[in-house]
Amino acid sequence: MQDIADKLGLSKGTVSLVLSGKAKGSRVSEETCRKVKQMAAEMNYQPNEIARSLSTGKSMSIGVVITDISNEFFGNLTFHIQEQAKKYGYTVITSNTNESPEEFYDAVTTLLNKQVDGIILVPVDEGQEVLLKIMKRNLPVVQVDRYYPDIKANYIIIDNYKVSRDVIEVLIRKGLQRIAVVCYDINLNALTDRRQGYIDALDRHGLLDPALIKNINYENQEEEIKRAIIDLKNNPDKVDAIFFCSRRVFITGVKYMHREGIKIPEEMEVVCFDEIDSFSITNMPITYIKQPIRKMGEKAVDILMEQMSGIDEIKECVFEAEIEYSI
Amino acid sequence: MQDIADKLGLSKGTVSLVLSGKAKGSRVSEETCRKVKQMAAEMNYQPNEIARSLSTGKSMSIGVVITDISNEFFGNLTFHIQEQAKKYGYTVITSNTNESPEEFYDAVTTLLNKQVDGIILVPVDEGQEVLLKIMKRNLPVVQVDRYYPDIKANYIIIDNYKVSRDVIEVLIRKGLQRIAVVCYDINLNALTDRRQGYIDALDRHGLLDPALIKNINYENQEEEIKRAIIDLKNNPDKVDAIFFCSRRVFITGVKYMHREGIKIPEEMEVVCFDEIDSFSITNMPITYIKQPIRKMGEKAVDILMEQMSGIDEIKECVFEAEIEYSI
Repeated sequence: MQDIADKLGLSKGTVSLVLSGKAKGSRVSEETCRKVKQMAAEMNYQPNEIARSLSTGKSMSIGVVITDISNEFFGNLTFHIQEQAKKYGYTVITSNTNESPEEFYDAVTTLLNKQVDGIILVPVDEGQEVLLKIMKRNLPVVQVDRYYPDIKANYIIIDNYKVSRDVIEVLIRKGLQRIAVVCYDINLNALTDRRQGYIDALDRHGLLDPALIKNINYENQEEEIKRAIIDLKNNPDKVDAIFFCSRRVFITGVKYMHREGIKIPEEMEVVCFDEIDSFSITNMPITYIKQPIRKMGEKAVDILMEQMSGIDEIKECVFEAEIEYSI
Repeated sequence: MQDIADKLGLSKGTVSLVLSGKAKGSRVSEETCRKVKQMAAEMNYQPNEIARSLSTGKSMSIGVVITDISNEFFGNLTFHIQEQAKKYGYTVITSNTNESPEEFYDAVTTLLNKQVDGIILVPVDEGQEVLLKIMKRNLPVVQVDRYYPDIKANYIIIDNYKVSRDVIEVLIRKGLQRIAVVCYDINLNALTDRRQGYIDALDRHGLLDPALIKNINYENQEEEIKRAIIDLKNNPDKVDAIFFCSRRVFITGVKYMHREGIKIPEEMEVVCFDEIDSFSITNMPITYIKQPIRKMGEKAVDILMEQMSGIDEIKECVFEAEIEYSI
């Protein structure tokens, strides 16, 4: 600004008034405004947003903390968050937790130090303290995909229980009786609700068999899913279908079903919790649960912006997911 | 800091010395240091990084501008960039261009205003001015996946020409003669090199047929890929294989091959430029080109950090990709 002022023989205050858009109604003439703007363009002037942040107290950035950006579900979610944030003039700082409470803590601490104006996060197991830390600062925060039921805070989830129960009911109506579930053993409602929906639907029809419930450790997933598939194949009573509770579990599970020579759908049907954009490269029917990812991402940003504008009513959003069929 | 100083009856300057890690060798006693740190912890003190940025001139953030974070290739690339940046203590601000030069311009302008310390970007067609704008500011920048050959700037790419030529040679050695290519018509070297590698390999063996080259418009891709597949199916001389030059083209192409009842690999073989983590859900052999995504992402950050530390030698990195076979 000083350079522009020097070139035009004006004071820095005048230049600042013009470039911050506050010249209207002031003593600065239109002619001067025009000259300042032209010189600013010629000199490739860019406002220093860091200095501006310090005076306005706003960084115009939001933080997004997800499990893993290379996972298609979170990639899609982040895409829609970014596109929606852009409409409000906000940029997005992203970090991965890899389901680790330590990485979750570090990611949030960094964002707080960066003075982001709000945070959208996917909770991890045992991460309640981190959410409370954000709230203690009165910083707007929205949980997505999962939430901590003990904490009164904004969240956006889908009705995991209902859609899981419904999809199992569909399989039962088709005549399938021996239905297995393969699910992470993570103690978060998104996953426990999916397993419980499965359990309740089968139990209602007297078809529940605990031997068909396979809980998978996240860190050792490849090996454990492989073992689960072999175990289900060798079950003395033929298994009719497998409900995979998330994307990666499905991909790994179907890989081992192929390796074990299990014919899909002739010998076993498969259900995937989530849509995968490459379903179409397989030539087999897949029942899947479609989450409204775009709506979830956009709504998360909308709620965050509302809270940033001073509305402090807690929003608990539960969207419905849909059951779809590929092919 | 003032609050901490007041509570302990110290000057703000003393507190600042301790909390900025500059107390060692100063007049401040160890006992005072301990007290300040303890009080800072009790009062939940967090450094204001915006204020710190203004004094150090460093924001400790880098910008990453990619085509589309929901695309698995870019999701993976961003993941490895983020994890590597984290090791250096940097956070990452991400934006999507959707292959649009306007969005590319907007994304970079926003990052410049945010005073990021460096930018990693995936060039878009007709976006040279944007790269030049960054360089004019002397801000470190690294191009990934593609580059502008007319501009002397850092880049990390793979040898698209060589690996494409090689994969076609493999098919020819297997006895396939009528090989088609389906490729975006985007005028960027990553894509033109893939097409050219294909052309030169076939030409060398006298097998080139222009009717088998299908150029696809990015915005209208679904419809154009569908038409290309139908056209190849109806070619009077049977087509033996299709080389799909990128991930989305492959997924859409194989979908329409299934719909048209084309048996893979019995009637036509397929080659995918890129690995897809869900290849394993299909039960068919796919030849694919595996890019060293992790190495590319990590190297991009390493080069950026070198440049930020004052090394201004231009780095032009060309990694080799590998040909792999699924199943």
